[in-house]
Amino acid sequence: MRNVKVAGIGLLKVKEYWDRSIQDLFAEASLKAISDAGVETVDKIYVSNMSAALMQNQLNTAALMSDALGKPGLPATRIEAGSASGGVAFHEAVQAIASGFSNAVLVTGVEKMSDILPDVVTTALTMAEEQEYTAYTGITKTGIAAMIHRLYLFLYAKPEEVGMMAEKSHEHAVGCKHAQYPFMMSIERAMASPMEADPIHMMECSGIGDGAAAIVLVPSDDTGVEVAGSAIATDYTSIAQRSDPMAMDAISKAADRAYKMAGINANKVSLAEVHDDFTINGVLGIEGLGLAKVGEGAKLVCTEDVDKGGRIPINTFGGLKARGNPLGATGIYQVAEVVLQLRGDAGDHQVEGAKYGVTQNAGGMASICAVNVLRRAKK
Amino acid sequence: MRNVKVAGIGLLKVKEYWDRSIQDLFAEASLKAISDAGVETVDKIYVSNMSAALMQNQLNTAALMSDALGKPGLPATRIEAGSASGGVAFHEAVQAIASGFSNAVLVTGVEKMSDILPDVVTTALTMAEEQEYTAYTGITKTGIAAMIHRLYLFLYAKPEEVGMMAEKSHEHAVGCKHAQYPFMMSIERAMASPMEADPIHMMECSGIGDGAAAIVLVPSDDTGVEVAGSAIATDYTSIAQRSDPMAMDAISKAADRAYKMAGINANKVSLAEVHDDFTINGVLGIEGLGLAKVGEGAKLVCTEDVDKGGRIPINTFGGLKARGNPLGATGIYQVAEVVLQLRGDAGDHQVEGAKYGVTQNAGGMASICAVNVLRRAKK
Repeated sequence: MRNVKVAGIGLLKVKEYWDRSIQDLFAEASLKAISDAGVETVDKIYVSNMSAALMQNQLNTAALMSDALGKPGLPATRIEAGSASGGVAFHEAVQAIASGFSNAVLVTGVEKMSDILPDVVTTALTMAEEQEYTAYTGITKTGIAAMIHRLYLFLYAKPEEVGMMAEKSHEHAVGCKHAQYPFMMSIERAMASPMEADPIHMMECSGIGDGAAAIVLVPSDDTGVEVAGSAIATDYTSIAQRSDPMAMDAISKAADRAYKMAGINANKVSLAEVHDDFTINGVLGIEGLGLAKVGEGAKLVCTEDVDKGGRIPINTFGGLKARGNPLGATGIYQVAEVVLQLRGDAGDHQVEGAKYGVTQNAGGMASICAVNVLRRAKK
Repeated sequence: MRNVKVAGIGLLKVKEYWDRSIQDLFAEASLKAISDAGVETVDKIYVSNMSAALMQNQLNTAALMSDALGKPGLPATRIEAGSASGGVAFHEAVQAIASGFSNAVLVTGVEKMSDILPDVVTTALTMAEEQEYTAYTGITKTGIAAMIHRLYLFLYAKPEEVGMMAEKSHEHAVGCKHAQYPFMMSIERAMASPMEADPIHMMECSGIGDGAAAIVLVPSDDTGVEVAGSAIATDYTSIAQRSDPMAMDAISKAADRAYKMAGINANKVSLAEVHDDFTINGVLGIEGLGLAKVGEGAKLVCTEDVDKGGRIPINTFGGLKARGNPLGATGIYQVAEVVLQLRGDAGDHQVEGAKYGVTQNAGGMASICAVNVLRRAKK
């Protein structure tokens, strides 16, 4: 298996792009990554997108995006794994290089949600749950997360402790040029915001935004940032099927596999990007990655350990809550942010001396999860 | 790069499954393939599906199907490339083995179309075209194919010659247990059927059906059926953008890449499965694979060369027209059928002495195409 290196990244600011098409966002982020990588071209494209079938009535986006990029002819593949699409697409792109099939792979995530009616977004999110069983009851994704959140509050933490996930993500987003909401938001404001689905307040949810993020992968030459480990895992789609509804086995299994491939354990991780689409999911992501014991994730978030000078900085550019969560692009933003850190290009967000960074990207109620581990190369 | 072998296949009859879910079809085909392969389990799943977002309101099918198979936990990835989803998913599954990431991969295509209103199917097919440009005009996929068909008739052939693609596919389907329409259909009947989009008659179009087909891949041990070559290519999504609207560059590019990887040229191909969703597309598939010169594909189809005892047997189990075309499953059916031939398990359909078999699976108006080449191993 060939080792894989991240040669370049390209990020668009997450915001509402009312005047631009999904192809346009894809092409801009992709060209940035290709330019950053300094490669003449790429020989394979992965397109990560969750909801274009619903939001743009568009399938077959791999061909469409290759065309939009001015590269009709190239091999291209679209990956969809709910809001884990980005992390899964990155994993598949790593395999394309590792196998020797490709020598320069572009993997770009794109999603355009803001010029869609809000109820379509809610529908799309719930389409990642089983339609004949779970969604049939009328519950939304937020409703499912709310049940888990309530159980967590019953067992382990106070509402303000889980809610701190949002305050911290906002704090870390300040100054981030590609963040949708780069401003402080206090825990008091979060707790005073309306209930989205009790006990989840509106300000504990990631917002609706458009974005695109791109990465170029090449075979490793032992310089720059390498892919140390990359793994996917799944779980029962419905939380009602799981032996412990709060266990989130897909996160811990994917993490175990990715750490094993990287030859490390959670103690070696310098920083992490977790999937905080809701505050509770960010907390469970931290626990699933082994960065806190079960039931102690929220308490960890309330400490300075998760800040940029801390023991294990988390969501250093704002996470889904404050950088933004353009579904199919989110997992690629996470990887690109870790790359910025390991390169030393994170500016005011820089975590000093970071060697290993990990991303955790979940789809459905973590019925699928991708964990990718990056490391600073030896040279 | 590790060589890859097809260890097992599983096929369901293409038909209308009114009483079964998409998960159920997926699981049955998958279990057949796992049983046929004689492996205890698999370590990665690829799900090929085009339209569940539209037809079942279901995203995140990789997790859902792993769960349905009783394998929650496994890494799983969903691929979508319009009606080329199956061929593209097979290509990605090959990479998973070739890279060393996986040692036994299940790739299953599934689509359930019959309990959906017909206009939703038409909409889904057109969703593989560009929505803001092509689909916006109101044209259907059949309408686009009709324009190409008319041009072909103007330049190269009579209506009956192109229409023979349908008669031949039906003739080859007779006796095929997994075919949706395993009966003869004469060219006279095709030409007397109503116009779907002039000059395409209804009986020149593949039908609506449900199906699932599965394959298990493992590292090659130089026995059985190996993957000799596997490639994808894309093209301008809109035919209006192409320098020659009839060139279908994605087919010929994917074929060239796959042949090169296999170390062969078109003359070495023993049999082929082409994407005859419309008769004209089957003809252009034959030409794109280099099995006939440009403009001579329809004339080839009118000869005995394409029959099982002929020079280059085509669509030996009935192709999309007669075996059936359950979109995301179609490309997997094609590969499985070639495997049956190369194993010598094709029964009445057997092509004697076949060494290399090729599949051609297109999405949109061939804006994406996967070509997979299989060979009988030396031992």
